[in-house]
Amino acid sequence: MSGEGGQPRFDRAAVLGIGLIGASFALAVRRAGLVGETVGVARRESTRQAAERVGAADRTTPDPREAARDADLVYLAAPVGALGPMLESIANVLPEGCLVTDAGSVKGPVCAAAERVLPPSVAFVGGHPMAGSERSGPEVADAGLFAGHTYFLVPTARGGDEAVGRLERVVEAIGARPAILAADEHDRILAATSHLPHALASSLALAVARLVPDPEARARFSAGGLRDTTRIAASPPELWRDIFLANAEALAGACRLTMELLEDLVRAAEGGDAEALMEMLSRAQAARLDLSSDAAEGPGR
Amino acid sequence: MSGEGGQPRFDRAAVLGIGLIGASFALAVRRAGLVGETVGVARRESTRQAAERVGAADRTTPDPREAARDADLVYLAAPVGALGPMLESIANVLPEGCLVTDAGSVKGPVCAAAERVLPPSVAFVGGHPMAGSERSGPEVADAGLFAGHTYFLVPTARGGDEAVGRLERVVEAIGARPAILAADEHDRILAATSHLPHALASSLALAVARLVPDPEARARFSAGGLRDTTRIAASPPELWRDIFLANAEALAGACRLTMELLEDLVRAAEGGDAEALMEMLSRAQAARLDLSSDAAEGPGR
Repeated sequence: MSGEGGQPRFDRAAVLGIGLIGASFALAVRRAGLVGETVGVARRESTRQAAERVGAADRTTPDPREAARDADLVYLAAPVGALGPMLESIANVLPEGCLVTDAGSVKGPVCAAAERVLPPSVAFVGGHPMAGSERSGPEVADAGLFAGHTYFLVPTARGGDEAVGRLERVVEAIGARPAILAADEHDRILAATSHLPHALASSLALAVARLVPDPEARARFSAGGLRDTTRIAASPPELWRDIFLANAEALAGACRLTMELLEDLVRAAEGGDAEALMEMLSRAQAARLDLSSDAAEGPGR
Repeated sequence: MSGEGGQPRFDRAAVLGIGLIGASFALAVRRAGLVGETVGVARRESTRQAAERVGAADRTTPDPREAARDADLVYLAAPVGALGPMLESIANVLPEGCLVTDAGSVKGPVCAAAERVLPPSVAFVGGHPMAGSERSGPEVADAGLFAGHTYFLVPTARGGDEAVGRLERVVEAIGARPAILAADEHDRILAATSHLPHALASSLALAVARLVPDPEARARFSAGGLRDTTRIAASPPELWRDIFLANAEALAGACRLTMELLEDLVRAAEGGDAEALMEMLSRAQAARLDLSSDAAEGPGR
C-alpha cells in the first residue's frame, strides 16, 4: 500500500463472483494501476474462461478459499443471499491486513455477518456500486461501468476510518463517487429508491397480466408508459428475491406508505374530488421532475 | 365522400383543440389527401398561429361553433374533461351528415354525452389514438405520429357500422391500426394498461419524496429503475386528473388488485418465504417479457 493520500496498491485481488460487476471492478482497478495480480472465482467454467478472455482475471479458480488465501483485497460480487455464507467460508484463510468488501445492494446483513465471522486481523467495509446493466456476465464487463455513479461505502466494527479511507480512494480511482453511509441508513434509502420501484413494477406486471389475460391484447393495447413502468420487472428474479428478503422490513414500510398514497388517489377519483387529485398529481409531477435533474441522469455527471 | 371501399374525402375538417394530437391528425389527413380545407380551433392565439405556421390549419378561430358550422368532419382533441361540454356547445350547429369523433383516452363519458346531446342527423364514433409525445403543442405536430400505433374506434348509438367503417378507412389512411371495441371494454383495458401505471408512477414519486425528503439525496441515490418507473408521473396533471375522474371505477379496481398483489409480495418478504417470492417475481418477469415482444415495441410494427 502507498502512503496516506496516495492511491492504494494491492499485490493480489481476489474477485469472488466474477460476473458483470466483479469483472468490471477487476478491469477498472487494473486500468487504474491499483493491483498486481487478479484471481477470479466462479463456479461455472464458462464464466471463468470468459473472465480470463476479457482480461478481468490473470487466473481463475472455482474455490473461493484458494483465491482468498493470499489476497490483500477481496471483492465479493455475489447475489445478496450468498454473501454471508461466502464470508463464513473464507473467514479463516484471509491473510492479516487483508481488505474485504462486497458489492451487494443490501448492507445490513452482510455487514452484520462480517462483524460476526471475520477475525479482527482483517478489515471489512461494505460496498454498493449503483451501476449495472440489463446484461450480465464477464463478457459485457466494462472498466468504465462505475464512472460517474454513486458508490456506497459502509463502515463496520471491522472496518473504520482507515479502511474506509483506503476503499474510498479505490472508488475515486475508478471514477465513481463515494458516499459513506451507515448500513441501516443505506438500506432505508435504497428501500425507497430501488427496492420499492422494483416491487411496484413486479406487482404491476402481475396485475396487468391478470386484468388483460391475452398477451397479444396486452402488448397491442399498451404504450410506452406501461413498458417504462414495468421494465425492471424483467430483471433476474433470484437477485431480487434475495434483496427483498434481506431488506424486508424497510421494503415493507415503503410499500405500505405507497399503498396508502395510492388509496388516497383512488378515493379522490371515486369521490370525484378534482381538486385533491390535481393537488396529488401536481406534487407527484414536481417530485418526478426533481429526479430527472441533470445531476441524476446518466454516467459522468 | 367517395364510394364504398375507397378513401373517404371531406370538404372541410374542423379540429377542435389543435395541439399536438389535433395538429398531427390534421397534417396526417392532409398528407393522405382526405380533406379539402382544415379549420383549427384553440383558445390561445399563439397556438392558433403555430397551427397555421406548421400547415396544420388553413385558418383558425377561437370559436368551436364557428368552425363546426360548415364542417363534414369534426375532430375533438381536447382534455377528456372538456369533451362533453364541447359536444354540447356545438350540437345545434353541426351540419347534417357530419362525422364527429374525438381523441380522448377514456371513452365511456364522451360516447354517453354524444348519444345524449347530438342530433340523429350527425354521426359520432369515439376515437383514441395510442400515440403521443412528452412534448405538446402544434409546433411538434407530426403527420406520422399515428403510424403503426393502435387507434381505438368505439361505435355508439349515434355511429354504427357505416360511420365506424368510414372512420376506420381514415385511420388506415394515416397509417394507424384500427381496433374496434365497445366503450366499457376500452375503458377497462386502458385502466389496466395505461391509467394504472400512471397512478402507480405518481404514488411512487410521492412515496419516494416522503421517504427521502432531500431532493439531492433522492437524485444522487437513485438509478435508472426509479427514473423509468416514475417517468410518466411527469405528464401534465390536468390531463390525468380528467382521465382518473372519467374512468374512476375501472381504475379503482385495477389499483386495488395491484395493492393486493403488492401486499402478497411484502408478506412473503417479511415471512422469509423465499419460494413464494421467487414464484411471484418469476411470473412478473414472464409477464413483462411478453410485453416487450417486437410486436409491441415502437411505431411501424
